[in-house]
Amino acid sequence: MSRSPPPPAGAPRAHASSTAVARLAGVSQSTVSRVFSAGAAVSADVRERVLKAAAELHYKPNALPAILQTGRSGIVAVVVGGFYNPFFTEFLRCVTSLLRERRIETMLVDTSSDDNLDDIVGELSRYRIDGVISALAIRSTRVARKLEGAGIPIVAVNSKKFGNLRTVSTDNRSAGALAADLLIDGGCRTLAYLAGRESTAQTERQRGFLKRINDRQVAPPQHVVAGFSYEEGYAAALELLSSGSRPDGIFCVNDLVAIGALDAIRIEFGLSVPGDIQVVGFDDIPMAGWRGPDLTTFHQDMDALALGSVTLLAEAAPSRPIVIPPRLVLRGTTRPRDVAVTP
Amino acid sequence: MSRSPPPPAGAPRAHASSTAVARLAGVSQSTVSRVFSAGAAVSADVRERVLKAAAELHYKPNALPAILQTGRSGIVAVVVGGFYNPFFTEFLRCVTSLLRERRIETMLVDTSSDDNLDDIVGELSRYRIDGVISALAIRSTRVARKLEGAGIPIVAVNSKKFGNLRTVSTDNRSAGALAADLLIDGGCRTLAYLAGRESTAQTERQRGFLKRINDRQVAPPQHVVAGFSYEEGYAAALELLSSGSRPDGIFCVNDLVAIGALDAIRIEFGLSVPGDIQVVGFDDIPMAGWRGPDLTTFHQDMDALALGSVTLLAEAAPSRPIVIPPRLVLRGTTRPRDVAVTP
Repeated sequence: MSRSPPPPAGAPRAHASSTAVARLAGVSQSTVSRVFSAGAAVSADVRERVLKAAAELHYKPNALPAILQTGRSGIVAVVVGGFYNPFFTEFLRCVTSLLRERRIETMLVDTSSDDNLDDIVGELSRYRIDGVISALAIRSTRVARKLEGAGIPIVAVNSKKFGNLRTVSTDNRSAGALAADLLIDGGCRTLAYLAGRESTAQTERQRGFLKRINDRQVAPPQHVVAGFSYEEGYAAALELLSSGSRPDGIFCVNDLVAIGALDAIRIEFGLSVPGDIQVVGFDDIPMAGWRGPDLTTFHQDMDALALGSVTLLAEAAPSRPIVIPPRLVLRGTTRPRDVAVTP
Repeated sequence: MSRSPPPPAGAPRAHASSTAVARLAGVSQSTVSRVFSAGAAVSADVRERVLKAAAELHYKPNALPAILQTGRSGIVAVVVGGFYNPFFTEFLRCVTSLLRERRIETMLVDTSSDDNLDDIVGELSRYRIDGVISALAIRSTRVARKLEGAGIPIVAVNSKKFGNLRTVSTDNRSAGALAADLLIDGGCRTLAYLAGRESTAQTERQRGFLKRINDRQVAPPQHVVAGFSYEEGYAAALELLSSGSRPDGIFCVNDLVAIGALDAIRIEFGLSVPGDIQVVGFDDIPMAGWRGPDLTTFHQDMDALALGSVTLLAEAAPSRPIVIPPRLVLRGTTRPRDVAVTP
């Protein structure tokens, strides 16, 4: 396979120099550069003459010499762990828009696991990327070390803290505890947890949930490993309820799993939510707010996670992890309550 | 705002040269380049020595000199029109994965309208991007002309054909006609169409729907402009049914609008689907297959749209538009039927 598509027939591939543009526009070469750099002050008249000359000569500003000189490209790699989960795409939306405001371009990386992240970042470094923001948690110490060795600053979301890894997280443990309080205060005594596969966020949510249940001397919840998708949540709820057990409160690792569970509970078993079973999700993806699911969940503040990531990446030295409090969003899958619930 | 984040403290910003790596590994400099270029044949032993030396010296392969020489970067800009619609994110997933297989990197552009696409592409050209794939249709002739003038090959999905613009589309008009047949054959006589805002796809789906209804001598459908989001579909159905009219078949411009309409029909008006009203969507986003909505819709073949885009981009000269047939997916929002329906 060719590394990249061939040029279209007749497209100008030899690029006119800024000097040629300057000559044609009758200005200095530095003026041409000013016209093509953000926020530089140039009179409207001069700008127009330069742009006209540039268009005539098919001139395109060239970032590469500066990148070679400084080793900095104005490109950041943003990593997502799949597009199936609106959590990732919403984060991508927020980060890309923040980076654009700073005139930084986003190079997209989609990978289902962090295992090969060091190789991917290694490859991207040929473009002298300035940093990496990963919505995918880094779990492997080996990868964390290699990324650190690459000398490219890395920010990871909901990730365990390794060495110089910069992390921005939602307070997943407090949210888990809050979910336990919410269900227990709502009258639930037979709890269940639909878990995700191994990840820091999943572990923290589970820990907080289990500890608070134990502190409140309620029987430990049933535990089914679902995953992170709608289908896996549907299957897990099917397994749970087919086993004859009948929990009255279920906390799910994320909204997709919760919405899958809701459909199984209502459609497969004809049970009422929240009448027979109360359900709580995590993320507050757009579908959680749809009238169908109408899911009680925890809102992950994407703007804060994204801003935290961009801010940490810009800092000269790795600084303390940023932790963002989750916000409980009460909807129709838990019993209505007037009391404000706080961690 | 700084153009890019500052380097992290102590990170090696001065990059070791491939010559230094060659010296340390005891091989020629061309061997070093071969080790770091895809598919080049190098003995395992030599590769290992080179990689070891590279790691020791923090050497990073550098794409920039080659880009300066050839004017080609191995970077393609992929444009989406927002992340709210899984149509865009699913397309992004397919295209990014196809590009990676070809060792081409994706530079992400998110813009709600094509009006400023020429400016964005102009900016990205400073990185000598090799092409643009836009999931967002190009509507403005001005923009299409300017993009053409930029000498960068552009492929747009579901877009009107302008000049040299390369287009890959689903056969939206046939799908609209198919939707009319499906509803009429299912016994509907009072039809409605929930439209999107102005776009080629929207216009084509509507044209096909209206023409077939007229051909079959059924009364013209009611027409409400919704938009493209769940909330807009919900509001449009609310408006439609509150007006006292009671259509028995509704075709929606996309799945998000259809799912919003379904929730309004079932929850706000307590009507049964497909009993009282049959509903057909478009796109076959994952949520359309959820047990809740269980939406009959048209599947847009993302793999084919993505492959078509990457293929057209790689062609030397603009070629004929690629048109991909939609596939009808029968689910629970239309009456069951055994007859196979074909365009």
